[in-house]
Amino acid sequence: MKLSSLIETSADWLTDGSEETSIVISSRVRLARNIRGYAFPTWAKKVERMELIQMLKPVVEKSGAMTSWAVSESMDAFTQLDKQILVEQHMISREHAAKSAGSAVVINKDRSISIMINEEDHLRMQSFKPGLRLKEAWQAIDQLDSEIEKNVPYAFHDKLGYLTACPTNVGTGMRASAMLHLPALVLDEQINQVVQAVGKLSLAVRGLYGEGTEALGNLFQISNQTTLGEVEEEIVDRLSKVIQQLVTHEQNARATLLEKKPRMLADQVGRAYGILTNAHSLTSKEALNLLSILRMGVDLGIMPHSLRLTVDELMIAIQPAHLQVGTRNKLTTEERDALRADIMRKKLTGVKKPDSKKILKPSPLEQEPN
Amino acid sequence: MKLSSLIETSADWLTDGSEETSIVISSRVRLARNIRGYAFPTWAKKVERMELIQMLKPVVEKSGAMTSWAVSESMDAFTQLDKQILVEQHMISREHAAKSAGSAVVINKDRSISIMINEEDHLRMQSFKPGLRLKEAWQAIDQLDSEIEKNVPYAFHDKLGYLTACPTNVGTGMRASAMLHLPALVLDEQINQVVQAVGKLSLAVRGLYGEGTEALGNLFQISNQTTLGEVEEEIVDRLSKVIQQLVTHEQNARATLLEKKPRMLADQVGRAYGILTNAHSLTSKEALNLLSILRMGVDLGIMPHSLRLTVDELMIAIQPAHLQVGTRNKLTTEERDALRADIMRKKLTGVKKPDSKKILKPSPLEQEPN
Repeated sequence: MKLSSLIETSADWLTDGSEETSIVISSRVRLARNIRGYAFPTWAKKVERMELIQMLKPVVEKSGAMTSWAVSESMDAFTQLDKQILVEQHMISREHAAKSAGSAVVINKDRSISIMINEEDHLRMQSFKPGLRLKEAWQAIDQLDSEIEKNVPYAFHDKLGYLTACPTNVGTGMRASAMLHLPALVLDEQINQVVQAVGKLSLAVRGLYGEGTEALGNLFQISNQTTLGEVEEEIVDRLSKVIQQLVTHEQNARATLLEKKPRMLADQVGRAYGILTNAHSLTSKEALNLLSILRMGVDLGIMPHSLRLTVDELMIAIQPAHLQVGTRNKLTTEERDALRADIMRKKLTGVKKPDSKKILKPSPLEQEPN
Repeated sequence: MKLSSLIETSADWLTDGSEETSIVISSRVRLARNIRGYAFPTWAKKVERMELIQMLKPVVEKSGAMTSWAVSESMDAFTQLDKQILVEQHMISREHAAKSAGSAVVINKDRSISIMINEEDHLRMQSFKPGLRLKEAWQAIDQLDSEIEKNVPYAFHDKLGYLTACPTNVGTGMRASAMLHLPALVLDEQINQVVQAVGKLSLAVRGLYGEGTEALGNLFQISNQTTLGEVEEEIVDRLSKVIQQLVTHEQNARATLLEKKPRMLADQVGRAYGILTNAHSLTSKEALNLLSILRMGVDLGIMPHSLRLTVDELMIAIQPAHLQVGTRNKLTTEERDALRADIMRKKLTGVKKPDSKKILKPSPLEQEPN
């Protein structure tokens, strides 16, 4: 599979479009593993890293989930643009995109599993599922992990568990996370409170692209912070329960806004629709934020259901690297903003105006004869 | 004529809709006159002011331009709402709206002439014309003035000219002004420079409702500052020439923007259209500013010509007092913002999207096969 085909379609887990993904868009579990007897990637010399790839890549490619892999390449096989596309599709980390020869990536055909070789650890294996399916994501990656473990000796300590380059991963080496869409908690100004409460449970809240990124488009990534003292199933179970509570909070915030500020909601959705279908220049940030509001419009029943998939696809397609594909020259920021708006108007052609009457009671004004 | 009929239609000079009014919306000339032997209104006792009305009102009503007057009332005959409507239609000043018994207003049928009795001076007579027609406005008010002068003795000083309550009006007692729509000078950030240059010519630049008001909707009122040392025709002539220059500046700014930033223009007009046709809450300020951009869209040829009249009517209709008419209870700010958006969506129903292709060259992106 060529990388360009990654552009034409999105991974199913990333743009599912179903009701299930209305608040929890996707779930992800990643494992950090290292091979006994090899220096961690950051300390290893290039020749050692190359040697490790020679050894690990065939093992990984052979494993059940990856047999019909879509992409399996050394990082120097990619252009800068290819790497950015992989980041925008959450297949590799920003850090891994900076790597070259001595690092590699293997992605399976439906893009539900990606394995980074020689990122911070020798192996970073991630499994993705649409909606809140952390347990399934865990099972998929656990199975892959067990298969690989049969063929290579992991660095494992009887008391500490799996050994990792960064001490924050020692133990399970697992990071489970979910991407949540929380526009009502943001609009109702409850989000800071919620983020603080989640922080007290040893869970981390981050933006769209992981550590240190802003929460654009009202998208929040919730993940476990601790990897010691709990077994994987417990962590996944506890995280799932917290996320269920966040879903309830978001649903309550929507209900409250629908009851107390329906016009504000109709106004927000209307403006988002009006701007996205008529603007001729859109920054990435504005576009994501307006798409988020349109997505909420679907959940509120004032935009058509089919729009959720369109919105989710657009959220990926309007990222800088995705925009750059198919254009000959490197685009300036201004040209990207223009192209982003052009794509947006085109993709939203034919989408009807928000059906605000579904949430607005006829106002006393409208009832009057005059 | 009942005041409510003032709401149903706008004065022709206020919403002309013709090409002529694209940059200079309207012209106005007002004269301040006082009657010999009577104290200025601010110093006169109520009984003296009442007596003056008794004397002046019939004289004014009889004059040629006013014979079939539409409104001729003492200010205490109006409700608070009526007065605000008269202000929003530029028929009386804000100061006059605060008056009660002892002050009056006479407005002719086509609302091209309004006469305030006992505002700051005994008589404040104004004549309005659409477009840049200061000379015609001057001639109309000059004729009325001459007629009235035949029947009442004006306070006139051989060397100073007409005497007025405020020394800034002594001499001609004339203030000539025009309302200009200058969106391109604002978008191109030249407006402050232009305002300063105009100030140096002893002309004043003000907002939509005269002294001390903000320039909403890119609307600017330009008027003469001096009333001494020049005859009326010279003042009108000089002001007209300066306004012609401002029109040229605005046209040049539009041409420059069309050449250098056509996408910015298309974006501005598109967003204004998108928001006005989809919002469910609009403040007066936002609505005026967006209508202004839509109006520029008409001038640029990307919105239909018929929209200019609609926009000009909406600029009047969405003012607070106009909104209040026809509703039973006093509206809160929130309710007004809601009603304003409802009216806007309704009135703009069926207006097609901006035809941006008329100003945008096909971008290199669109020309590419991909």
